[in-house]
Amino acid sequence: MNTADLGLPVDVPSTALFTDQYEFTMLQAALRAGTADRRSVFEVFTRRLPEGRRYGVVAGTGRVMDAVENFRFDAGVLGFLREHAIVDEPTLEWLASYRFTGDVWGYPEGEVYFPGSPILRVEGSFAECVLLETVILSILNHDSAIAAAASRMAAAAGGRPLIEMGARRTHELSAVASSRAAYVGGFTSTSDLAAGFRYGIPTVGTSAHAFTLLHDSERDAFQAQVASLGSGTTLLVDTYDVAEAVRTAVEVAGTDLGAVRIDSGDLLLVAHRVRQQLDELGATRTRIVVTSDLDEYAIASLAAAPVDAYGVGTQLVTGSGHPTCSMVYKLVARAASADPKAPLQPVAKKSTGGKTSIGGRKWAARRADAHGVAEAEVVGTGPVPPELAGRQLQVELVKGGEVVAREPLDDVRERHIAARGALPMSAVQLSRGEPVIPTEYA
Amino acid sequence: MNTADLGLPVDVPSTALFTDQYEFTMLQAALRAGTADRRSVFEVFTRRLPEGRRYGVVAGTGRVMDAVENFRFDAGVLGFLREHAIVDEPTLEWLASYRFTGDVWGYPEGEVYFPGSPILRVEGSFAECVLLETVILSILNHDSAIAAAASRMAAAAGGRPLIEMGARRTHELSAVASSRAAYVGGFTSTSDLAAGFRYGIPTVGTSAHAFTLLHDSERDAFQAQVASLGSGTTLLVDTYDVAEAVRTAVEVAGTDLGAVRIDSGDLLLVAHRVRQQLDELGATRTRIVVTSDLDEYAIASLAAAPVDAYGVGTQLVTGSGHPTCSMVYKLVARAASADPKAPLQPVAKKSTGGKTSIGGRKWAARRADAHGVAEAEVVGTGPVPPELAGRQLQVELVKGGEVVAREPLDDVRERHIAARGALPMSAVQLSRGEPVIPTEYA
Repeated sequence: MNTADLGLPVDVPSTALFTDQYEFTMLQAALRAGTADRRSVFEVFTRRLPEGRRYGVVAGTGRVMDAVENFRFDAGVLGFLREHAIVDEPTLEWLASYRFTGDVWGYPEGEVYFPGSPILRVEGSFAECVLLETVILSILNHDSAIAAAASRMAAAAGGRPLIEMGARRTHELSAVASSRAAYVGGFTSTSDLAAGFRYGIPTVGTSAHAFTLLHDSERDAFQAQVASLGSGTTLLVDTYDVAEAVRTAVEVAGTDLGAVRIDSGDLLLVAHRVRQQLDELGATRTRIVVTSDLDEYAIASLAAAPVDAYGVGTQLVTGSGHPTCSMVYKLVARAASADPKAPLQPVAKKSTGGKTSIGGRKWAARRADAHGVAEAEVVGTGPVPPELAGRQLQVELVKGGEVVAREPLDDVRERHIAARGALPMSAVQLSRGEPVIPTEYA
Repeated sequence: MNTADLGLPVDVPSTALFTDQYEFTMLQAALRAGTADRRSVFEVFTRRLPEGRRYGVVAGTGRVMDAVENFRFDAGVLGFLREHAIVDEPTLEWLASYRFTGDVWGYPEGEVYFPGSPILRVEGSFAECVLLETVILSILNHDSAIAAAASRMAAAAGGRPLIEMGARRTHELSAVASSRAAYVGGFTSTSDLAAGFRYGIPTVGTSAHAFTLLHDSERDAFQAQVASLGSGTTLLVDTYDVAEAVRTAVEVAGTDLGAVRIDSGDLLLVAHRVRQQLDELGATRTRIVVTSDLDEYAIASLAAAPVDAYGVGTQLVTGSGHPTCSMVYKLVARAASADPKAPLQPVAKKSTGGKTSIGGRKWAARRADAHGVAEAEVVGTGPVPPELAGRQLQVELVKGGEVVAREPLDDVRERHIAARGALPMSAVQLSRGEPVIPTEYA
């Protein structure tokens, strides 16, 4: 594959401008100072989870690998950098042949994470690594925020299907990445056709209120829809009067009617009434789909209601209150000279103010108790203790500039279910709390 | 122009898949029922502003016009729809020649809006209009949310420059649109090179903590940066000890040092100390840039501090607590037959549950008092009262499928400043409140 994974039905030649200008000015200054070739290790981690959240979900890793592979400089990009005098000629020359040649290790996509987890590690020369900061963080911070919300919603939904339908509430390409992240987090399908096109996520959708309003009567609209989509379709029953619409729906489609959708009102109450009415009409297998500003709490509150599927929009694509993660990309070690054999020295910001970090290249392992339940995220910089060697979390993603870890999205989804399932049960309670396992520094 | 405006340095052949599946299934059913050609009016509006906000900001209109123009079906898109059996063959045939041929009127970009404001009006056949729902809402809901946050921050900053630096906290293309929306809302520049490339927004950036940590000492790092970027550069002074860094910075760069940046700690306190130190060192013209999880409240709290520019990231690209707007796209009128001369009839959802709306094609005007200060948003469906004829808000954007209202982003930015300036003063107070003017229905 040779296309940056933006979720577009089009080739994107380069991701090199999804970059903050300071990465280029640092490059230029380091090239001139002779420090650009110092071997360096950057790590992505977060100092905290969003308030009250019990775990994070790594998502976007697959997109990061594509972005790294497609980070290069064609004539158009170089022309822009030259024309706006963003870097000097020697730097432009250096950029013209840029390809990332280093290594990337990280938590596999779908894995859970905690404060301090070294989610991604990028190693190479300072010059080649420093340029990747923004594009890597954009992808991971966005996609992981959506996946975390999706995971909570999926846990709240139990086994009931979840439909992602938030495209209209976020940027058109953020929407595509959101569908992908929602699928990783446990959603079942999406309304977004671009996500179906790009990622093969199952797509669904039948009709809106506009379709009912277009026709001379609700009956006309239902007849038109059933004639076109069959009796297995989902009829939207809350344009005028719900009880009347349900009666009309079953008259028009018969008791084989696939589903009805309720998009407003007191969903708990209306779902019960509609279920009873459908059963009385003999449409006992007709399902009930609810949509209307749902979040994980609303989903959980409907657990006892006769609801067969949830459609979630706004709260999914906005991360249910936490639309971004606070992942940072920090230099944690570097050589003191450009000699490739020079040893790495840990480095870290030291000033006061809460933004300090721990230097050194880190390993991570998740310690489990005798029952296999996770009990701590262990992060260290020295040798890995033998008892944790088999529980390490980081895998090789890019080796010498080549992506080595592409995988199907369904594998990622399965991994997330397994990783979440190995956490203490309280991880999936919706009550606010601390991270469900502590992070220990070895 | 013939490229959808996604903020990409690449041509996007079509926006047709940024669409929820139900738009296609409604199209198919309406084609079959013979109702697809009924003349229809859809309107974009919002039932409420985000809690506590006093006004909204229309942004993304320019991107919407491009999206409408580029909404068409090439072989790849049609192949996807066929392969996944999303629509039938007659519908695919209809789509193959799709071009929007209708009219779009709307609030000009940069204008402010209130609950019920008919922000955009799309008129044509049901078939051609219904397909545009998702892509229009994606753009307007995202871009307007960012612009609203930007506008509040710009008001709080007074005349001080605002740098948009949130790319790392949101999807890589959402970031580009965010830079654009931030500029509309009053920001001065961006760190995001893709936004500079795509929209010509001024870009800025110098260095991160990694650059200091790469070098053997802070002095080495400052020397490297000044050698490369000149003494007018901005040195980051909070990697180790701020006071020592400021001293070193002025020693290295001289009193011509352009600026220092503070990215952590108690910004109010540190800014005062740094200003005093710079002045004592003779660097009286060296500016102070602060960055560190700023929002409009933090910016306002620094009004009395010796701060010369603000860099804003997370809170800007997440809409400062409101990452999306609640704009909807509703059928408000349609003809009762496919006859192009058939009169339009108002339609509206009627069920209980808070999602009702007002039918009919609407005009809007902003009534002002004797001093020219806005006093009401007036929305109506009948004839426009003569006294409001000169104060109408909607302009023609697309006429018979042709975009007629492209304009430079600087004009949009100026329009926003003027529109906000004509609101009552309390609009730009940060305290929570009701919309600063009421919406009246004529």
